[in-house]
Amino acid sequence: MKKIGRQTVRFPSPPAIVGFGSAVGTKEGQGPLGQCFDFVGKDDSFGEKSWEKAETAMQKKALSFALKKAGIQTGQLDYILAGDLLNQCIATSYSLRSQNVPFFGLYGACSTMAESLSLGAMLVDGGFANYVAALTSSHFCSAERQYRNPLEYGGQKPPTAQWTTTGSGAVILSKKGKGPYITHVTTGKVVDKGITDANNMGAAMAPAAYATLKAHFEETGREPAFYDLIVTGDLGSLGKEIVIDFFRRDGVDLSGCYHDCGVLLFDPKTQDVHAGGSGCGCSAVVLTGHLLREFQQGRLKNLLFCGTGALHSPTSTMQGESVPGICHAVAISTEKGGTQ
Amino acid sequence: MKKIGRQTVRFPSPPAIVGFGSAVGTKEGQGPLGQCFDFVGKDDSFGEKSWEKAETAMQKKALSFALKKAGIQTGQLDYILAGDLLNQCIATSYSLRSQNVPFFGLYGACSTMAESLSLGAMLVDGGFANYVAALTSSHFCSAERQYRNPLEYGGQKPPTAQWTTTGSGAVILSKKGKGPYITHVTTGKVVDKGITDANNMGAAMAPAAYATLKAHFEETGREPAFYDLIVTGDLGSLGKEIVIDFFRRDGVDLSGCYHDCGVLLFDPKTQDVHAGGSGCGCSAVVLTGHLLREFQQGRLKNLLFCGTGALHSPTSTMQGESVPGICHAVAISTEKGGTQ
Repeated sequence: MKKIGRQTVRFPSPPAIVGFGSAVGTKEGQGPLGQCFDFVGKDDSFGEKSWEKAETAMQKKALSFALKKAGIQTGQLDYILAGDLLNQCIATSYSLRSQNVPFFGLYGACSTMAESLSLGAMLVDGGFANYVAALTSSHFCSAERQYRNPLEYGGQKPPTAQWTTTGSGAVILSKKGKGPYITHVTTGKVVDKGITDANNMGAAMAPAAYATLKAHFEETGREPAFYDLIVTGDLGSLGKEIVIDFFRRDGVDLSGCYHDCGVLLFDPKTQDVHAGGSGCGCSAVVLTGHLLREFQQGRLKNLLFCGTGALHSPTSTMQGESVPGICHAVAISTEKGGTQ
Repeated sequence: MKKIGRQTVRFPSPPAIVGFGSAVGTKEGQGPLGQCFDFVGKDDSFGEKSWEKAETAMQKKALSFALKKAGIQTGQLDYILAGDLLNQCIATSYSLRSQNVPFFGLYGACSTMAESLSLGAMLVDGGFANYVAALTSSHFCSAERQYRNPLEYGGQKPPTAQWTTTGSGAVILSKKGKGPYITHVTTGKVVDKGITDANNMGAAMAPAAYATLKAHFEETGREPAFYDLIVTGDLGSLGKEIVIDFFRRDGVDLSGCYHDCGVLLFDPKTQDVHAGGSGCGCSAVVLTGHLLREFQQGRLKNLLFCGTGALHSPTSTMQGESVPGICHAVAISTEKGGTQ
């Protein structure tokens, strides 16, 4: 068994990240990470006639940049693992209908990039694939009209609400390569502490992030300080503080090595996104635009990438249900054993 | 590499099916397979106040029957792989929030049972799990108001339309056990031949079923007659005829060993379901209620279980998009090498 605890797998043959690509919308391009992305859209339509089709177009762009950097053709991919936030994950189905690659569809809400990396790494380490693509996206406009209201309605949000990222990220995992490597994954359980405010997803997901991080540290025997950076994606500024608070109660200070993708993506002084970015695309583009470049430039050696998802829907909210959360952690290191 | 072709994996250590459970609605209980199910609801509400919660309740029942037959506790499951048809897969999130098991959410439309069995088998054979649960559901009433209209509207459907099954199925896979075993999986690609009629999903999905079956036969070197039974789920009566037609053009006669779960579940003479059953729950309950019992009773030795999904949404239909299909095939045999 490759499991070293209830939730954590250590890979005997850690899969290498050999390519990554990102495509984002205009607002994301104007943020602090704006220079990092492979493609920044001029008007968020990506040349398409609907927001849903725009999201599909973004996915195709992100995947093609990732394949290019990996130096492989689409036909060399053994599997694509992908999903998005739209009902029935249509951004993904339509982006993959032209790809001719065996496909597993995933739904993990905003945790989907971490989920696809987790399963993708298992397929590579398990001997089922030489190359796997992990792919996800979200689009502010397609999400806004599905989850809340059409943009034209001009609805207001409370300060705890987050801003759905317009972006798509793709990662190519390979059996061989010079790294960085996925060394461990810690898979989340559904955690629901009873938050019913769908405009406060940071608070709803923070307990899931705390639970998975705690399991990861216990099962690997690693301290938080082992990592140059621990990122959640996407709890926003409020959810981030809650996670820091939870660990503080345990006598653990996370504040020096912990950040959140939803906070990293936008500048709170010049870009009004309330509590920060969200959406499958948020952690995906922070990983593929920013964090994996930090590895290339030698500024990161050990990263714990934690995708967080709110597993509710407008229907469950209308029925008075609370918001279940989940968090999947993926350990990425320059060395196969994890650098010390 | 355990891949023996572009789409097919042969498992060196085939995972055993050690438990399976099913829960269905009243109409399904009145059909030709009615006696096979572990639980038949009296009124499709399963004691809950909304159809969505009823679907969640069904999932819990199906999983608990499967665990009982496997003789294990929930806490022994390494992973649950699950999904459903509802927006953001809420039937699944809410059924799993009480389970305390690492969870990967899937979306494969009506192919989800085959998708979860495929990935589940990879996680077991790959050394990541001793026990995995594959779980899925659909509910006529929750689907009807999401995809089409509230029941009270009384909308009429054309004869090509299918009837969403009220049912949930769960399968427990294990590293050890006396079988039957999952010996091979052939993972589908997205196939879209341009069908735009969302009331004719059988025609939309049939090309995907044909493509995956063809790949399975080519890559395994098996003839259709190797299998006692090949089932698709769920093309309905029309889609089934299209698949038979496609193979007839290739000079292959499938008619003697091929059936469809959507056709098997209801009696067309006494139950008006138009072209047959559909929904994630349909192939799931035909597998867990009927087919796996046939193995137990020695009437099946080699089964090719092919989940078929239509990867569209009401939004994509309204935008004039065609319906992409996918099909994942799972080979189940009494012998680890596949009985001859």
